[in-house]
Amino acid sequence: MYTDCVIIGAGPAGLKAGQLLHSLGHKVCILEKEEIPGGKLNIWYELFPHNESADGILQQMLADINYPIRTSIIIDSISRNSKGFLLRDQNGDEYRSRALLIATGFKPFDARQKEEYGYGIFENVITSVELEKMFKENKITNSKGLVPKRIALIHCVGSRDIKVGSEFCSANCCITGIKQAIELKKMIPDLNIYCLYMDLRLGGRFFEDCYKDSQVHHKIQFIRGRLSETNENADQTIVLRYEDTLAGRPAKLTADMVVLLVGMQPDHSILKLLPDIDERVGSDGFFGNGRIDQADQNSDNDLFFAGSCTGPKSIIQSTDEASEVAFRVNKYLKKRLHTSIQDQYDGVWIQHP
Amino acid sequence: MYTDCVIIGAGPAGLKAGQLLHSLGHKVCILEKEEIPGGKLNIWYELFPHNESADGILQQMLADINYPIRTSIIIDSISRNSKGFLLRDQNGDEYRSRALLIATGFKPFDARQKEEYGYGIFENVITSVELEKMFKENKITNSKGLVPKRIALIHCVGSRDIKVGSEFCSANCCITGIKQAIELKKMIPDLNIYCLYMDLRLGGRFFEDCYKDSQVHHKIQFIRGRLSETNENADQTIVLRYEDTLAGRPAKLTADMVVLLVGMQPDHSILKLLPDIDERVGSDGFFGNGRIDQADQNSDNDLFFAGSCTGPKSIIQSTDEASEVAFRVNKYLKKRLHTSIQDQYDGVWIQHP
Repeated sequence: MYTDCVIIGAGPAGLKAGQLLHSLGHKVCILEKEEIPGGKLNIWYELFPHNESADGILQQMLADINYPIRTSIIIDSISRNSKGFLLRDQNGDEYRSRALLIATGFKPFDARQKEEYGYGIFENVITSVELEKMFKENKITNSKGLVPKRIALIHCVGSRDIKVGSEFCSANCCITGIKQAIELKKMIPDLNIYCLYMDLRLGGRFFEDCYKDSQVHHKIQFIRGRLSETNENADQTIVLRYEDTLAGRPAKLTADMVVLLVGMQPDHSILKLLPDIDERVGSDGFFGNGRIDQADQNSDNDLFFAGSCTGPKSIIQSTDEASEVAFRVNKYLKKRLHTSIQDQYDGVWIQHP
Repeated sequence: MYTDCVIIGAGPAGLKAGQLLHSLGHKVCILEKEEIPGGKLNIWYELFPHNESADGILQQMLADINYPIRTSIIIDSISRNSKGFLLRDQNGDEYRSRALLIATGFKPFDARQKEEYGYGIFENVITSVELEKMFKENKITNSKGLVPKRIALIHCVGSRDIKVGSEFCSANCCITGIKQAIELKKMIPDLNIYCLYMDLRLGGRFFEDCYKDSQVHHKIQFIRGRLSETNENADQTIVLRYEDTLAGRPAKLTADMVVLLVGMQPDHSILKLLPDIDERVGSDGFFGNGRIDQADQNSDNDLFFAGSCTGPKSIIQSTDEASEVAFRVNKYLKKRLHTSIQDQYDGVWIQHP
């Protein structure tokens, strides 16, 4: 397949960039490793701060797609020459493109790395991603199939944690925790919910409103505390030991269920295929350099990055960035228009080892 | 003047949208009330988190402008009919456009509203905006013309403060405070700097790195505390009384200079001119509704908003959003292309009272 731009990843950023580049007349193709498009939109039930349906947003994004999105595609190799890219997938299919846009998103932090939190050991310790699945199924139950009475949400799991090598803030977990706490409370009105946080980072628009709502209307209890460890009682309830950092003393809490708000990690699965990529990975492991002056804008660069593969972002931030990047791709492609597509794909292809 | 889109405001969002719409072949004009373009880029010296020169970024944005930017324009009236907008400025000049993009930015919180902080009363209490002016002049001195030895930076001035009617977080002050603290320390190496914060909200990319750098290399001291009031000593130094919210007790600090990190407020100066605008202002006073599903995208809406007039944003977030909005303006304008410009501007003009 000959294209102007191959986009890897059919999440919010990839879909947005695809839609925009297509609307500008470019030949676009999205390659997606999962069976369905949507990326992380498929793991959320409702989205902060307005509780919009994630699936509704996705269906809206997919409604006016009229360019190819190929799903279940595993890319085996990416080669390039001065004229563009050649990608091969696991079926041997080839995709040639003038520009390549990486929109591979993030991966949720693997909570097993925080062994002391008990994930993968105690059945009633789950992640925020698993809680979303329960929301989708409209059924919140613990390991015994019972509706929980006390739930603790743990902020910053895999974020701002030098012990697991992630010093950055994932920026979206605080508001996700508040959103999930409110959703839980709406489903189970007599539930007691405790949020253990480091700082509450609610910089997004209307996030403070959610926070206030969670306290005033839903009586969610916020504890400034850092979890030390969890243990399981005989009845499979969980004992949490933490430091109350306002009171400056150790404390204890028992819950039927513990939800770990897992952070956003860089997904490096595409990294080994990308040529000359090292200089394009930041100290935090995400792509790009996060600079304002965007040196790429005026260069001959044909490799672009958008969405949460360039750092933790909300969905709006991802699609906003994808729009900015789509303009840069457009600018690059327009510069190349004087060369014919045939010219484009002649020459020697150098495959990254 | 006949245009496809008039943009009000030549800050980062307006300039970005202008550049993009122009690149797509639309006739654009930016109207700016100040004498020079750039908006708030003109008040900053360096930008977080990479300490890029604000003026350098602005010059880069202005370098490839080849459409009109009219400065020192005060808009007297905005009329509309079903076909577009008619704007008149203070000189009687008229601008007709199919679409109107508001990119009027924010205004810094007026620190005099927090009378107990002493701004406008004590000479050595200044704002973060005034500190930037000192950076530009490369001269940090107190009211006596002396180089300060102890400076306190106060976070959240006019943010998250129900008393002044601003319950939202301005999202950019924490990192601005850290940036300014580091800049101060680089200029005055033996300076003692104290940051009084509520929560440190550092969700942006590389912000945690700045925070770490400020502590490890620059020995900035962070105090989780809420300022109660300031008083002036006979020598014009400032006494700060605050509650140490970690220790849970009142505390006191003396400084040569106090810098108030003023929040981002909605700028309503354009509001009275805009037709049917009430439904487009959020509960926080910023334009738009911050929703993901962007109902506007599929409507006949010809009035658009971008940048920090839709809520507190960093410069990258503003220009990213401006890109997304530019695509929506483009989509709208393309739909209107079948009508001639003459048709466009016929009809009855209804001026907002």
